[in-house]
Amino acid sequence: MSSYTQESAVTVLGLGPMGRALAGTFLDAGLRTTVWNRTPGKDRELVERGAVGTVSAAEAVVASELIVVCVVNYDAADAILRHPDATAALKGRTVLNLTADVPDRARDSAVWAAEHGITYLDGAIMTPAVTIGTPGAVFLYSGPEETYQRHQSSLATLGGRHTHLGEEIGRAAAYDVALLDIFWTAMAGYAHALAVAQAEGITARELAPFAKGIGEILPPIFEDSAQEMAVGTFSGEGNPITSAVSSMAHIVHTSEQHGIDAGVMRAAEGQARRVIGLGHGADGFIRVADVLARQALAGNAGQAAE
Amino acid sequence: MSSYTQESAVTVLGLGPMGRALAGTFLDAGLRTTVWNRTPGKDRELVERGAVGTVSAAEAVVASELIVVCVVNYDAADAILRHPDATAALKGRTVLNLTADVPDRARDSAVWAAEHGITYLDGAIMTPAVTIGTPGAVFLYSGPEETYQRHQSSLATLGGRHTHLGEEIGRAAAYDVALLDIFWTAMAGYAHALAVAQAEGITARELAPFAKGIGEILPPIFEDSAQEMAVGTFSGEGNPITSAVSSMAHIVHTSEQHGIDAGVMRAAEGQARRVIGLGHGADGFIRVADVLARQALAGNAGQAAE
Repeated sequence: MSSYTQESAVTVLGLGPMGRALAGTFLDAGLRTTVWNRTPGKDRELVERGAVGTVSAAEAVVASELIVVCVVNYDAADAILRHPDATAALKGRTVLNLTADVPDRARDSAVWAAEHGITYLDGAIMTPAVTIGTPGAVFLYSGPEETYQRHQSSLATLGGRHTHLGEEIGRAAAYDVALLDIFWTAMAGYAHALAVAQAEGITARELAPFAKGIGEILPPIFEDSAQEMAVGTFSGEGNPITSAVSSMAHIVHTSEQHGIDAGVMRAAEGQARRVIGLGHGADGFIRVADVLARQALAGNAGQAAE
Repeated sequence: MSSYTQESAVTVLGLGPMGRALAGTFLDAGLRTTVWNRTPGKDRELVERGAVGTVSAAEAVVASELIVVCVVNYDAADAILRHPDATAALKGRTVLNLTADVPDRARDSAVWAAEHGITYLDGAIMTPAVTIGTPGAVFLYSGPEETYQRHQSSLATLGGRHTHLGEEIGRAAAYDVALLDIFWTAMAGYAHALAVAQAEGITARELAPFAKGIGEILPPIFEDSAQEMAVGTFSGEGNPITSAVSSMAHIVHTSEQHGIDAGVMRAAEGQARRVIGLGHGADGFIRVADVLARQALAGNAGQAAE
């Protein structure tokens, strides 16, 4: 095998919307792309475009030094990778697992991979399938730096921004979880706001430009809040958490008056009120992050004492 | 009284951080500004800058045709405005109530105002006190269009964007509630994400640039989602709600594994799972808004049937 072939060959396991986008983009970039999916037929369009179709994961694995896995979760990934034929075929190769799951699954997989002579990188794709191959794509990686460097040129063909977050294998998944926490909580708030607005006679189109305005003020507030969290000072001057819970109560009241479930805001209000109850009422809202983080420290201390 | 004096005079009742910012900005713009606060002493700096200090709300009211009220909530506003002396003094004048509360309080106040010969405008300030007098300020108004037009030039001195949302008096408060629903839910998600990240060894400063990136993708997604809500089609292609709940479960799991309360995300996940249970699993996440809005319609139908 020539080193050229090795460096420009990639296998993609899992051909859901994201897997197909990854394989299609590798193909467009001229990489020799081998594909496999548990359910047959998903590879048809890719094979027509020049991908190498295979009938087993083991067959797909031996075609490349870099094996990209992108399936629904780690249970699905494990079912593929830990099949004895696949595991044997993977020996000496690199798995880049772009499957989303909790950080501990990546940590567990790294142990398994080391036991079987497999090099293991974990990754997270932070943007939808349509962004793959465009400047809008965002990829996060963690695991051995040297392995990441070796495959960087292949990965760069996927477009967008690629960041190696460190050697600790769970780091990409941890960033993924934290960032999706922000995203899905915000989306839950937006969905609820659209419903409350509609109950108040405000259409989605009427609310949208103002909602967009709220979205636009979030990034600088996120930055300032992170700074407060980093420094450990939570200035509530002009906007104390007591004022936030007053707004939150108005939201819960208006929602429930219309018969609309306000469970998300009730939970958020409860958290904020407990923070006030701990004596932080004059602080800014982001003190909530500090109090929540202390729950983890308390838990770790408890574990250490056991 | 000259019409000049009338048009360029304003009374501000309530001198918390926001009231002081409003009064100070009116003063800077050259308006004759009369101020009052329940607790004495809050007017000192404003009086030194040229504001007229008063010893009662009634005395403050008679100094201007436009009375701007900005206190902690409508209970506080009512305690001031519905005192017999103040109510009598307000007759024939305009109250602009910039106090935040639920829409029904504004509706109730409009009825009260009409009964006492008082012209009533409601408003909401969507940005912090520091934005007042700057292009960043955002003001929403509802109530009689003609009244809004009459005072527009005085209000414009507060800077930023001013939008009259319609004659229905509850509209500004309804927008306020819906927009703060987005804002505070997103902030609750961010606070939680900072805590989970810290438990995973990711500092606030490390997470911040990526969190900012999440913030930046929200405005266009808000717009697209509003469009889906308006049209009533909820395409989950490439990103169905089933995939969202999978992420949500990862977040809850990671959070609770660290001992961090995941109540907000648990509530959001529960809402999304109920939407899937109703048969919408192939739809996009914003179907949640549609299902929540139907709760209000069902409630209204129930009321109509009573």
